[in-house]
Amino acid sequence: MKIDLNCDLGESFGNFKMGNDVEMMKYITSANIACGFHAGDANVMSETVNMAKNAGVALGAHPGFPDLEGFGRRNMTCTSNEIKNYIRYQVGALREFCSFAGVELQHVKPHGNLYVMAMEDDEMAKAILEVISSLGKNVITFALNDSAISNMAKSMGVPVAIEGYGDREHTYNGHIVQIRKGPDEDRTARLTDRAIRLVKEGKVITNEGKDIDLKVQTLCVHGDTFGAADLMKNIREGLEREGVEITAISNFL
Amino acid sequence: MKIDLNCDLGESFGNFKMGNDVEMMKYITSANIACGFHAGDANVMSETVNMAKNAGVALGAHPGFPDLEGFGRRNMTCTSNEIKNYIRYQVGALREFCSFAGVELQHVKPHGNLYVMAMEDDEMAKAILEVISSLGKNVITFALNDSAISNMAKSMGVPVAIEGYGDREHTYNGHIVQIRKGPDEDRTARLTDRAIRLVKEGKVITNEGKDIDLKVQTLCVHGDTFGAADLMKNIREGLEREGVEITAISNFL
Amino acid sequence: MKIDLNCDLGESFGNFKMGNDVEMMKYITSANIACGFHAGDANVMSETVNMAKNAGVALGAHPGFPDLEGFGRRNMTCTSNEIKNYIRYQVGALREFCSFAGVELQHVKPHGNLYVMAMEDDEMAKAILEVISSLGKNVITFALNDSAISNMAKSMGVPVAIEGYGDREHTYNGHIVQIRKGPDEDRTARLTDRAIRLVKEGKVITNEGKDIDLKVQTLCVHGDTFGAADLMKNIREGLEREGVEITAISNFL
Amino acid sequence: MKIDLNCDLGESFGNFKMGNDVEMMKYITSANIACGFHAGDANVMSETVNMAKNAGVALGAHPGFPDLEGFGRRNMTCTSNEIKNYIRYQVGALREFCSFAGVELQHVKPHGNLYVMAMEDDEMAKAILEVISSLGKNVITFALNDSAISNMAKSMGVPVAIEGYGDREHTYNGHIVQIRKGPDEDRTARLTDRAIRLVKEGKVITNEGKDIDLKVQTLCVHGDTFGAADLMKNIREGLEREGVEITAISNFL
Repeated sequence: MKIDLNCDLGESFGNFKMGNDVEMMKYITSANIACGFHAGDANVMSETVNMAKNAGVALGAHPGFPDLEGFGRRNMTCTSNEIKNYIRYQVGALREFCSFAGVELQHVKPHGNLYVMAMEDDEMAKAILEVISSLGKNVITFALNDSAISNMAKSMGVPVAIEGYGDREHTYNGHIVQIRKGPDEDRTARLTDRAIRLVKEGKVITNEGKDIDLKVQTLCVHGDTFGAADLMKNIREGLEREGVEITAISNFL
Repeated sequence: MKIDLNCDLGESFGNFKMGNDVEMMKYITSANIACGFHAGDANVMSETVNMAKNAGVALGAHPGFPDLEGFGRRNMTCTSNEIKNYIRYQVGALREFCSFAGVELQHVKPHGNLYVMAMEDDEMAKAILEVISSLGKNVITFALNDSAISNMAKSMGVPVAIEGYGDREHTYNGHIVQIRKGPDEDRTARLTDRAIRLVKEGKVITNEGKDIDLKVQTLCVHGDTFGAADLMKNIREGLEREGVEITAISNFL
Repeated sequence: MKIDLNCDLGESFGNFKMGNDVEMMKYITSANIACGFHAGDANVMSETVNMAKNAGVALGAHPGFPDLEGFGRRNMTCTSNEIKNYIRYQVGALREFCSFAGVELQHVKPHGNLYVMAMEDDEMAKAILEVISSLGKNVITFALNDSAISNMAKSMGVPVAIEGYGDREHTYNGHIVQIRKGPDEDRTARLTDRAIRLVKEGKVITNEGKDIDLKVQTLCVHGDTFGAADLMKNIREGLEREGVEITAISNFL
Repeated sequence: MKIDLNCDLGESFGNFKMGNDVEMMKYITSANIACGFHAGDANVMSETVNMAKNAGVALGAHPGFPDLEGFGRRNMTCTSNEIKNYIRYQVGALREFCSFAGVELQHVKPHGNLYVMAMEDDEMAKAILEVISSLGKNVITFALNDSAISNMAKSMGVPVAIEGYGDREHTYNGHIVQIRKGPDEDRTARLTDRAIRLVKEGKVITNEGKDIDLKVQTLCVHGDTFGAADLMKNIREGLEREGVEITAISNFL
């Protein structure tokens, strides 16, 4: 039993710090690195690529909408062609840093509303996959179960890793929604237990209280979630205790 | 006798059109493509790379300061490390489009004040050359004669092409200043004659009226100069009449 | 019989020139000035305010989405609160230039997709009108006939001017769509005749070929439409020949 | 004996949080509010203006260079005219929020390198003061002792408040440099004692160890300094114990 642990990193911008990348890098196996549109900048990318390399963490691009103020979390009505060019531009910038550091790009995970829209919109899913498949046959796409983009990736033969979330609720089909507020004192323990059950047993209680089967290959905690690094640490340690092997997705997909 | 003709292209941004790239592409042999910081965007880059490929024009990156409003023509006090990361980011974005189009990056020409500062500032020249040399041993740097960056490139073994300008005055040592206004009716003829003499005889009258020797390997007209495409057309036709071979710099450096 | 002629101006950005403001300023009576989000910058605003003042043209704010690359012509899913703050910020910047020049703000016209969304979305219309009504009781809103925002303005008691367009087709209810391509040789004459009939008789042939009644108080030609200044000149001269008085909306609303 | 305590606030941007404005607002009497160029955005400005109003804190504009990534802390070679328009634009945006909240603008304090350059560069100082003086005769400029801008303000009759810093070292003439690192355990106590002596006795030990006379009317701690709110709290409580009246600059200048 194997799992990849991923997180959005490199989301600081100039003087604006975001997340605790140094701490988070200790627990994850794949880093989704912001590419300068929704977050991140050239200097932050350079540092984050080096940090991931030194930590032995696999590297992925995390392209988003060109909306720094909205953090890529607002829909923008872009054409397919714009989406393709935005992704290629961002991935290219990151790959140049990877290439300089002597590491390969493992995966691409669209960010924020680009991710959300790709789960439901076939045209956007297709645009994104056409870019990713052109990057090399081993570049993996991260996506939700039974989504426009995961289904299309399978039919196109693009390698895809199904994602679960440690800091979001899952819906009946494995998609995600903001997590309900529960009592704070046991939040980390509760989320950790849920994540371990999801990975180990392939089961999770949905946002509507139903118990579903959901097989995930990579598990995400957002870098800007409150207490993100601590949550990931707990999840990792719990999974290790359960005998789950924590390793980058490219080692077992 | 050979010369490369180059121009800054792909400087449109979204709905803002700049230059006449379609026309200019007919006369040049090397295109310096804006990379999204001082001008250009992902969509414009994609189009411009394809346009250059179809025209058989060699491709170069034209990275600038992150100052769209100032068009990269204002000094910014960046650290060497920032300069390096800004260039790597921009070149990487462009190379991804080149790679997708199946063409190689021929050269890098810093834009605007990044170019001007690199002519005089050893530390900035070094930062820029360290990035360019890391891109591959055949990637050519464009620079002015007897400048910080051209001299350093020679000592570092980085291939460098010395530039002359069709739409700027040269100083005593081959550097450039804004052109003096002359009578408009013969402007194109005058600039064309001067450019042909510079390429053919290696001689030019400076901004102070002195006749100097100046050997250039590539000749530039800025895309946003008034009547740029027409000027380049005249220069090209004039050079061809004089028996000069017009070909991309990588064919003869 | 009176009409206001308006145009989007001040849409240049740094080195990027847009429109022919100098020429257009001769024919219009109200200028919608870009405020730096979708187009325009502080320097362009300053120049445009002075140009309008000198030409005796009334001044309006033309706020848009924060999307320079998309020219404010892409939908963005902003909250009502964000919309309010974006408009207040942009109007405030413009009013400071107006105040320095000693002129008053006559009107506010939302730009691009902010305009389009306000025609159909009650929540957005309400957000926009709450800001405009807080600016002063005489500040006029520009809007399409029978739209969410024009209807709400009437019920809120906010002064509203109904707009027609010289360079767009009208739909059955006075809304607008991109114009159909016709033979180019008589384009200006055709559009001019249509505009004169719209102003003089309150009638226009819709995009679907139906003849409708439509009363407009201000007529717009976009500054970035091909041949915009020439079209506006023809429309103005035609209206004057027909005895229509051309004057700013605040003189007769 | 009276002193104004000021801080740079409203420097968050979208999802990027900066400083602890809620806590800082309890201790200061004047807030320098970022205006969207180097930091801050329309939403943050709106919140910060309301927060200051509710706390009874006087409001000032804190305009900077258009360099979000560099946080306005890099020199940019702008013309005087650009500087004027940048400041007028930013102040105007802020004044619209002030006007809506029913509060007046008390002061303008240029940010970062705009502040630093205005201390030494007469042309820039003049440009800034021409804008500030046009805003109204009571709008106060914040500046360092014996600086280009403070001297020019006095000769122009523009009200100016001389600033001291709680988190920077002063030089022989009251200008500022980054603070030397000392032992961390007593940092807050040390800085607090120094600030109290500066305010109460008009004396401070410079960065070169000399004891100088320096009369300041407003004391600043930067919002992004480590432990800023705690430092300001200590300074305020210390000053109160010493019988110094803490009140906004407009009450006693």
